[in-house]
Amino acid sequence: MPASPRPVAAAAPALHVYDTTLRDGAQQEGLNLSVVDKLAIARHLDELGVGFIEGGWPGANPKDTEFFARAAAELDLRTATLTAFGATRRAGSRAADDPQVRALLDSQASVVTLVAKTHVRHVHEALRTTEEENLAMIRDTVSFLRGEGRRVFLDAEHFFDGYLADRAYALETLRVAAESGAEVVALCDTNGGMLPAQIEDVVADVLASTSARVGIHCHNDTGCAVANSMAAVAAGATHVQGTVNGYGERTGNADLLTVVSNLQLKLGLDLLPPERLRDATRVAHAISEVTTVPPYSRQPYVGASAFAHKAGLHASALKVDPDLYQHTDPAAVGNTMRMLVSDMAGRASIELKAREAGIDLSDRPQVVVDLLAHVKDLELRGYTFDAADASFELLLRRTVEPGSLDYFAVESWRVITDARGEDEALSEATVKVVAGGRRSVATGEGNGPVNALDHALRQALAAVYPELDKLELIDFRVRILDASHGTDAITRVLIETADGETSWQTLGVAANIVEASWQALADGITYGLHRHGVPLR
Amino acid sequence: MPASPRPVAAAAPALHVYDTTLRDGAQQEGLNLSVVDKLAIARHLDELGVGFIEGGWPGANPKDTEFFARAAAELDLRTATLTAFGATRRAGSRAADDPQVRALLDSQASVVTLVAKTHVRHVHEALRTTEEENLAMIRDTVSFLRGEGRRVFLDAEHFFDGYLADRAYALETLRVAAESGAEVVALCDTNGGMLPAQIEDVVADVLASTSARVGIHCHNDTGCAVANSMAAVAAGATHVQGTVNGYGERTGNADLLTVVSNLQLKLGLDLLPPERLRDATRVAHAISEVTTVPPYSRQPYVGASAFAHKAGLHASALKVDPDLYQHTDPAAVGNTMRMLVSDMAGRASIELKAREAGIDLSDRPQVVVDLLAHVKDLELRGYTFDAADASFELLLRRTVEPGSLDYFAVESWRVITDARGEDEALSEATVKVVAGGRRSVATGEGNGPVNALDHALRQALAAVYPELDKLELIDFRVRILDASHGTDAITRVLIETADGETSWQTLGVAANIVEASWQALADGITYGLHRHGVPLR
Repeated sequence: MPASPRPVAAAAPALHVYDTTLRDGAQQEGLNLSVVDKLAIARHLDELGVGFIEGGWPGANPKDTEFFARAAAELDLRTATLTAFGATRRAGSRAADDPQVRALLDSQASVVTLVAKTHVRHVHEALRTTEEENLAMIRDTVSFLRGEGRRVFLDAEHFFDGYLADRAYALETLRVAAESGAEVVALCDTNGGMLPAQIEDVVADVLASTSARVGIHCHNDTGCAVANSMAAVAAGATHVQGTVNGYGERTGNADLLTVVSNLQLKLGLDLLPPERLRDATRVAHAISEVTTVPPYSRQPYVGASAFAHKAGLHASALKVDPDLYQHTDPAAVGNTMRMLVSDMAGRASIELKAREAGIDLSDRPQVVVDLLAHVKDLELRGYTFDAADASFELLLRRTVEPGSLDYFAVESWRVITDARGEDEALSEATVKVVAGGRRSVATGEGNGPVNALDHALRQALAAVYPELDKLELIDFRVRILDASHGTDAITRVLIETADGETSWQTLGVAANIVEASWQALADGITYGLHRHGVPLR
Repeated sequence: MPASPRPVAAAAPALHVYDTTLRDGAQQEGLNLSVVDKLAIARHLDELGVGFIEGGWPGANPKDTEFFARAAAELDLRTATLTAFGATRRAGSRAADDPQVRALLDSQASVVTLVAKTHVRHVHEALRTTEEENLAMIRDTVSFLRGEGRRVFLDAEHFFDGYLADRAYALETLRVAAESGAEVVALCDTNGGMLPAQIEDVVADVLASTSARVGIHCHNDTGCAVANSMAAVAAGATHVQGTVNGYGERTGNADLLTVVSNLQLKLGLDLLPPERLRDATRVAHAISEVTTVPPYSRQPYVGASAFAHKAGLHASALKVDPDLYQHTDPAAVGNTMRMLVSDMAGRASIELKAREAGIDLSDRPQVVVDLLAHVKDLELRGYTFDAADASFELLLRRTVEPGSLDYFAVESWRVITDARGEDEALSEATVKVVAGGRRSVATGEGNGPVNALDHALRQALAAVYPELDKLELIDFRVRILDASHGTDAITRVLIETADGETSWQTLGVAANIVEASWQALADGITYGLHRHGVPLR
């Protein structure tokens, strides 16, 4: 027998990892994927090593039909099998004559996932047909696709609600599907209202009465999609559906990477090769880039905050033994531990943070004590260093190595914003700085005061620090503190600056929003110069 | 026995709802609550009807000490009991001499929640003391606080990991606490790595060996915080800790409103009075406004998308029988079903809003259709009228009664903000308007551009509209939309204006933050004039 170039797909894995980001995930409010987006996501999913990628519903919309055509031509999947989603034939017709069923064949996907009704009330009220005809629709469509050489998975829609309403009928739909050749019966909690104990009981009952592989498809309406998926696996399900980043309608689908990480790291089951799981964080963020849905920092395993520690209580012990405070090794999912500094922090977190920045404070206890007092005082005034690592590092260096970051001195700055009638406002900024022994005055325009100041400051420094050319202001956030004072309140501005390789956050705090922005802006530039090892001039 | 004025707090409820948003929730990366923020959140939690509000750690940081002082003076809690969080006494000292324990007494909180080590390795490596001394620390501190008349709850830190490492010692810590008078032993999955089945087994074992009420405190590192909390309750726990919106360190704490909604709506347990649960969505969003952490649209029960359906195949069925497609009635948590493509709901709500403002649109269908299209267009550009009723009413009136709100015409405005060196920045605004047939030019100063514009505009209008004297700008909020574009992003400004009787919110949206502020400011003043029945002059 010749060696197969795709051994993983050829073998029957113990557990199916079935991704439906491109189909059910795309139902999320505000999410709109182009064909190019879908191709890019499919490539990421294949890198991750999932078993199946549900590509969409060819025949239901032209975009999905085009996706399958381009996927066949352009995608070279190494691990994953592409599946096409579709419905059973219409009532009172033949599967072979149903254009929607035809489109499934035309998609060239070797696996077809058929959605079928399993809930008597949905058969009557949504499908408006008889229970018998619904069974015939399942039987005919599965048989027809099997006869055409396709593998068939059944998505048993509203299965859990259907089971609770009429157990015998719900089980009968699965029996008919399996008997007709469906390889998987995936039980869907379509409305997302189930809890783990229910899922476990129903899956166990189903397993006792079917020969097909049993799968699970959960939604997060009770906040239990991950636990429900795990409960199904505990009961014997061996096919897990979900979406990357938990995308999906309403509260979303089960977050596939959380489920896989739990099963693999906590229960020792084999789903992805371990070296692929280490790509989880990267892939989750890469897919966020494609969808433009901002990454959720609190996302389990792959979130930016998932291994970020803030409490001073923990920091001292964390230094001794990180395993005491981490439920798993962040490296296993490609994430990293981070220490945050805040008014809850103690000396240990200051020391740890300094070490991250390459500054050893272990033999300078007084510096640590002073810094801690200074940080606590600043945080009382509205600073929040846990959101601005770079500003904290600047504070640290300015304390430990005074003068080392004095790239420029500010003489003055000014911004004018004006508008006539209903016209768009324009901002114009002038900054006067001394850098490299020279006084420089520059003016910049922008669509807002911060934008204008950014342009003016860069221009004023350009001759002395041409390295600034690489830096770009990429994010700007404003928070009004103690808003009960209206415009007299304190304003906190967070600015993110990037250099094409990485990015850093700086902050400014002042009564005047423009002044707070200016502080954050100037620090963002200072940090960038320091990061690139630019000497003072 | 005299009637108690606070019967709810006095009775022992079947299940404790224990909120730790202000303490453990505040550990979230980027979250920094002022004392005023914490007071505002406590009021919202009390409205919601939670049993306990953990206010913070007095003695660990000055802000929390101040919070308890102000809470005692200013908060009039009707349902909730405020609790102070703290640690057991230091090793080798007396509880009565420990300043941190003293601070707990000084906080005046009637309930103290003491965090204690229960994991042998944490005793050795983090606390650096002996197992015996740790037990003594628990015993002494609980006894001392009980002797001072406080109720004591124990937060058994790292309990689940500790139980797995050394069951006997972990149980012994609980035994000592209960014997010394602790009323609750809350088992904490501090690192968040547990799964529901483990939680259920451990809680059942603990219940067999303690007389205290058993509580549960979960973190979401495996995406199972809600399910873990429910598993504990299934095993017999009767005290549930969590945070609103699942705020917390790393991946956050158990989302208290999801847990409560599940227990109450799915399992029929009594936690909050049903009429209070109907405030869940409002309170979750109000607390988001205080924290400025953007609401998570996919949040179970209270998220903006939680009951949003993409209209498609089943639209007609959904209209016939929403229960077929909803796991629970959104009204039970104060949320609403939304059809994402249908404009029927949109028209109805425009008519309803108009009626609220005293405008009957029932016989003007074309106006409704035009308004709806206009609103949809504006919302696409970043407007959000649900947060700014006044702006919506102005839009309505300007459409239905053109010219009726033209109190003044703006010729131009300008703001200059400048600073010398490290001095505080100052802003100066000039506005040119025509009102009452006269052109008026006025200048105002302020500690920020909005403040300066506010002063200038009032001064320019003062002679024609002396009624403006009563109005005051009381709140100002900024949100940057589509932040990936940095300063090129769209800015949304919400301004709240008050007249001593009530207040109203207006919004502005523009690339330029000052322009957006100006729009909101001008509309806030226009609405105030209209509200007071001031005629055009």
